[in-house]
Amino acid sequence: MVEVPKKSKAAVIVEWGKPLQIREYAIPEVQPGGILVKVEVAGICGSDIHQWRGRLPLDQRLPQIPGHETIGRIVKLGEGRTHDAAGEALKIGDRIMWAHVDCGKCYWCKISRQPTLCANRTYYAFRYCDDYPHLMGGFAEYEYVIPPTDVIRVPDELTEEEAVGVGCAFRTVVAAYERLGGLSTQDDVVILGAGPIGLYSLILAVEGGARKTIVIGAPQSRLDLAKKWGATHVVNIDEITDPLQRKKQILDLTNGRGPDVIVDGSGVAVAFNEGLEMIRKGGRYLVIGQTSAGVTTPIVPANIVWKALDIMGSISATIPHFYKALQFVKNNRSKYPLGGIVTNRYKLEQINEALAAMEAGKEIKPVIDNRGR
Amino acid sequence: MVEVPKKSKAAVIVEWGKPLQIREYAIPEVQPGGILVKVEVAGICGSDIHQWRGRLPLDQRLPQIPGHETIGRIVKLGEGRTHDAAGEALKIGDRIMWAHVDCGKCYWCKISRQPTLCANRTYYAFRYCDDYPHLMGGFAEYEYVIPPTDVIRVPDELTEEEAVGVGCAFRTVVAAYERLGGLSTQDDVVILGAGPIGLYSLILAVEGGARKTIVIGAPQSRLDLAKKWGATHVVNIDEITDPLQRKKQILDLTNGRGPDVIVDGSGVAVAFNEGLEMIRKGGRYLVIGQTSAGVTTPIVPANIVWKALDIMGSISATIPHFYKALQFVKNNRSKYPLGGIVTNRYKLEQINEALAAMEAGKEIKPVIDNRGR
Amino acid sequence: MVEVPKKSKAAVIVEWGKPLQIREYAIPEVQPGGILVKVEVAGICGSDIHQWRGRLPLDQRLPQIPGHETIGRIVKLGEGRTHDAAGEALKIGDRIMWAHVDCGKCYWCKISRQPTLCANRTYYAFRYCDDYPHLMGGFAEYEYVIPPTDVIRVPDELTEEEAVGVGCAFRTVVAAYERLGGLSTQDDVVILGAGPIGLYSLILAVEGGARKTIVIGAPQSRLDLAKKWGATHVVNIDEITDPLQRKKQILDLTNGRGPDVIVDGSGVAVAFNEGLEMIRKGGRYLVIGQTSAGVTTPIVPANIVWKALDIMGSISATIPHFYKALQFVKNNRSKYPLGGIVTNRYKLEQINEALAAMEAGKEIKPVIDNRGR
Amino acid sequence: MVEVPKKSKAAVIVEWGKPLQIREYAIPEVQPGGILVKVEVAGICGSDIHQWRGRLPLDQRLPQIPGHETIGRIVKLGEGRTHDAAGEALKIGDRIMWAHVDCGKCYWCKISRQPTLCANRTYYAFRYCDDYPHLMGGFAEYEYVIPPTDVIRVPDELTEEEAVGVGCAFRTVVAAYERLGGLSTQDDVVILGAGPIGLYSLILAVEGGARKTIVIGAPQSRLDLAKKWGATHVVNIDEITDPLQRKKQILDLTNGRGPDVIVDGSGVAVAFNEGLEMIRKGGRYLVIGQTSAGVTTPIVPANIVWKALDIMGSISATIPHFYKALQFVKNNRSKYPLGGIVTNRYKLEQINEALAAMEAGKEIKPVIDNRGR
Repeated sequence: MVEVPKKSKAAVIVEWGKPLQIREYAIPEVQPGGILVKVEVAGICGSDIHQWRGRLPLDQRLPQIPGHETIGRIVKLGEGRTHDAAGEALKIGDRIMWAHVDCGKCYWCKISRQPTLCANRTYYAFRYCDDYPHLMGGFAEYEYVIPPTDVIRVPDELTEEEAVGVGCAFRTVVAAYERLGGLSTQDDVVILGAGPIGLYSLILAVEGGARKTIVIGAPQSRLDLAKKWGATHVVNIDEITDPLQRKKQILDLTNGRGPDVIVDGSGVAVAFNEGLEMIRKGGRYLVIGQTSAGVTTPIVPANIVWKALDIMGSISATIPHFYKALQFVKNNRSKYPLGGIVTNRYKLEQINEALAAMEAGKEIKPVIDNRGR
Repeated sequence: MVEVPKKSKAAVIVEWGKPLQIREYAIPEVQPGGILVKVEVAGICGSDIHQWRGRLPLDQRLPQIPGHETIGRIVKLGEGRTHDAAGEALKIGDRIMWAHVDCGKCYWCKISRQPTLCANRTYYAFRYCDDYPHLMGGFAEYEYVIPPTDVIRVPDELTEEEAVGVGCAFRTVVAAYERLGGLSTQDDVVILGAGPIGLYSLILAVEGGARKTIVIGAPQSRLDLAKKWGATHVVNIDEITDPLQRKKQILDLTNGRGPDVIVDGSGVAVAFNEGLEMIRKGGRYLVIGQTSAGVTTPIVPANIVWKALDIMGSISATIPHFYKALQFVKNNRSKYPLGGIVTNRYKLEQINEALAAMEAGKEIKPVIDNRGR
Repeated sequence: MVEVPKKSKAAVIVEWGKPLQIREYAIPEVQPGGILVKVEVAGICGSDIHQWRGRLPLDQRLPQIPGHETIGRIVKLGEGRTHDAAGEALKIGDRIMWAHVDCGKCYWCKISRQPTLCANRTYYAFRYCDDYPHLMGGFAEYEYVIPPTDVIRVPDELTEEEAVGVGCAFRTVVAAYERLGGLSTQDDVVILGAGPIGLYSLILAVEGGARKTIVIGAPQSRLDLAKKWGATHVVNIDEITDPLQRKKQILDLTNGRGPDVIVDGSGVAVAFNEGLEMIRKGGRYLVIGQTSAGVTTPIVPANIVWKALDIMGSISATIPHFYKALQFVKNNRSKYPLGGIVTNRYKLEQINEALAAMEAGKEIKPVIDNRGR
Repeated sequence: MVEVPKKSKAAVIVEWGKPLQIREYAIPEVQPGGILVKVEVAGICGSDIHQWRGRLPLDQRLPQIPGHETIGRIVKLGEGRTHDAAGEALKIGDRIMWAHVDCGKCYWCKISRQPTLCANRTYYAFRYCDDYPHLMGGFAEYEYVIPPTDVIRVPDELTEEEAVGVGCAFRTVVAAYERLGGLSTQDDVVILGAGPIGLYSLILAVEGGARKTIVIGAPQSRLDLAKKWGATHVVNIDEITDPLQRKKQILDLTNGRGPDVIVDGSGVAVAFNEGLEMIRKGGRYLVIGQTSAGVTTPIVPANIVWKALDIMGSISATIPHFYKALQFVKNNRSKYPLGGIVTNRYKLEQINEALAAMEAGKEIKPVIDNRGR
């Protein structure tokens, strides 16, 4: 059995936008139902930049340990925690991923049955960490999975690079596509944004039977990966900087009508309107990547009416989406180089370097890599 | 049999925003499948103001005969035109209503099966009238219903006041509610706007099983009718002028969560955002009354994501919606004073006075009344 | 505070189909999260007959305390049980209802999100009662609500007669109507069966905006209540015994096309096919009342194809459906005599008399009435 | 320009179940909107056997010219017939396919918008042929496409073998899948039947992102093609003749739960119940291949309720489904050997030999081949 130390290092935000510090926190006792994991890899996500810069409408207290896209290896299993949410047995040494914790009691959990909208969600990573049990963020050596958390086992055949994106971007995209209710045979799909949300949206469109799959984004390295993952066309916004010219190009590719389906994974408010302008009459518009609370952008509401659009927003995911995403990776890993989304590996102590590279758009999905530590 | 004159008077827009002129046009020969009607009443709609002011993204040529919400009495029936779209027999003297004509051949008619989005629609009223057959607008003594037009017979027991709104506002609302897919038992519904779109949206919410039905609009006379039609609450925007205060009021009425469903029938771009701000997480937002092409308003796209909204636009309607709307009026006329929506009757020659009163917000639904003429 | 005795009387099935015996069981200690209630009324349901006769595909061990449609008054509240599932505070003396307990861990609870299909449901009433905590059926003086159970508070203004049906029939119907996705404006609806499932299905059709609402069933007393609850037509199967004649009558009432929507609440296998034969092409068929496992009936599968039907089965419900049903009763009690569904009140010791009357079709919903006991 | 003869040979049913005779019919004048085609290939379908044996609930008069799955090459284009339903220009020499003709006026065409359920459909092939214009069946040298018919151009790059199945089986499957509303990521799908309906259902499941795709049918030659088209498993009903054993095998393949989705393309009434028994709780059941009017089979209606199933029937298709099916073939022809479904080519004069082979189960899709004639 693994020797567990008393303390764990963690990278901590102590002031919004300032360099994170490495601190040590006591590793908690494992309660019944709880799990202690050694962090193997922790993905860095666009939201980490937003969190670091203090832009998210979540817990505003500091310090915080970020890192919400984690693969952990089980070190201790609390009493009664014998299986994962899909019914697979759990044992020491297994790798797991887990979801934020819904309260199970509020209007959204109990009455409207939309648990990702839970009014009292317990978040990992997006939380004050000076209170017990401290270690609930991924940018650390160890992390504590609290008793009510839904966890899912990572299939043994997957590499961490293939699986890590499931922890945030991919499970979010899987949940969002459920809202779309499936593609019609041969829909033309435009993806706004070429980051992890955009790329995973692309692969579900490709596998879901889309005809044309067009990714609009930048930089070229992301678009190159999009092509490897099956995009029929890519549009580089660094090269074609005029939205009207991009619209013209998309119309030319879609019989002059515009795309049947748009997935907005851009994270940029103004992109939402670009989609509204180019989508075909009668189209469906899935909005995932708009998370900057309070940022406004002008739109023409009449587009929604004259085009009779369906616009569907989606946020976060629950454990079934982790399960489906992992199953998808397992079943399609021979077709697509899914691990290629991980563009860099940083040590925990290099966290500030990693965030800087992410913010500068030099990465797709870098990870904090504790393997072998 | 009725003596049919050679010519018909019509009110004609000759310059955008200037007074309409009364002109005479030759009454066309009735072709096989065509129908000549004497106009009984022609409703005046908010879109008539937009048309008169030159704001609609439709035919830009002048002159035009407006009036797209017409009850006509059959004067001549073209060969082969024996039944209406619901299979009812037609004869001279029957009252009918009719839809704009979809081409039946474009992508939207044939492939995506969304005929209100037809790429080549033949419009009544919104069209140049110096070409044959001239008389395709309701602000006239006679109107010509061209052969491919879908028509529906007005049930004998209905007054013109009860039925006239079906010609535009009500059939539009019926079509839009189909997109909503039904209310859940006991949804709280907020209606933005107290004009005909808002009022008919209200009555479908009331009959569809909503719990609270709240109309936000003005002036008080419209809100008084809303109460007669079953609104549980009304909010007068002339009295409560601050959107934040209105939002607070709505949250207080809806357990602090916001409405489950919002129907935007306001016609005012900024109202769309007011709805986005007050709707509950996980809510459904039906947008009908946003038709001013090119008018922008700022929104926060992140609301769509964090609230995981469903936003559905709807435009116009097809003949089944006329049928359902008329059936609804017929089946519920004893429960609701539906004729009360008609606030005034003008002679054809008073068209400019009628438009001025409509634009000034003094009317709900005035009509041009040719009865007895 | 109420004095709680050590033991509670309960009516117990000791042999399938034989008279129930009154036995005494120890009242359990209330654990954290648990609730002890004094049974006020316990509805008798068609399923009680099936249970008594040994026809249900559930726990086959005896003895069992039946009674799964219970209003209990809180006598003791376990630690931490402070609110109901809708967020209402709970206190001693409140009346509550509760749902069967889903495991929260199986494929249906966690992955496909269909908790009424839970693979490991803990049932009230349908269970062996010689094991602790014994008192989990409603035909008793006291009942124990175990910690993980979802409960809902009965609004103070409701009588027990108005509310009791929510405990099984009405919440089942509310859940089923969610599957239907709402009625279209002015659908013609046929309800098969005039028991509680049929009657509650009727009232949701009436309030949901149906045009014709036709109940096919017997005996006349049930059909008379159906008329009071808004049925536009009733068909007495004791009078019109030939299914072909009934079909003709329904076609005559529905423009020769057949009903747009059928709700099967009959509980009789052969009725399912009667619905298949009369429904209109393109109709929607909601099946609720078919629960006799293993009973076969011949159908023509080609009807499903040639009529392009939608057939939706629904079973049981979760706590949001209790909530919605209670809200519905609260909001509509002045419009409908909802308490009229309770046709008789029996003492606990009269349970065999009550079951006999129920099986003989002499009752709609009789209750075991402990009020004042 | 092609020389058009005065008369065309056609294979004619003169008595149900007796050998077809070769007769000659006058080739009609081409009216405005009509099209005369030379038949290139005409597929033979399971329905042809039912028609020949007199089992279909359609026109019962004789003689009839069967053949409803035809690729015709345009010989004469009636005035005004310039484009196909998708807006592609038409010219002499182009290959086209076409749909049965909906009336456009009945309740289903106009009000409920379900045109495949049209009450007054004008069928090709399933019709008395001694009346003008006689040549409306595919087992002939020439066929006449009447003016109101929707036609679609066959893309030039497709072989007749790749395209012919679109004319009946594939467009039917495309229409049916629209009813299914898309597969969830990684659904396990079972296809009942390995004929053209089953095989095209398979390929849409494979391309739609199913996890396991299991075809149950016979003979082995069809199952071998299923494997080439991407079936992950096949079950040969000639080898495993016990339905209970097949059910066990399917449960073993689907985590003991049963398939998430079943598509019944079997054409055998008893298979419908086999699907009901094996589908998982909460599954979706798409029924396409049940067309034998009046044939009964016993089912357990309680399965629909206890499993809370969605059962969706679908019949025929409209021109958008032809379009989507042809687009699908065009876009995926390099991935799948779609032409392999054509197992044999017969001359028109060999029609009785072809029908005998089809009835004996020796073929998948044989064609009458007029190419080079």
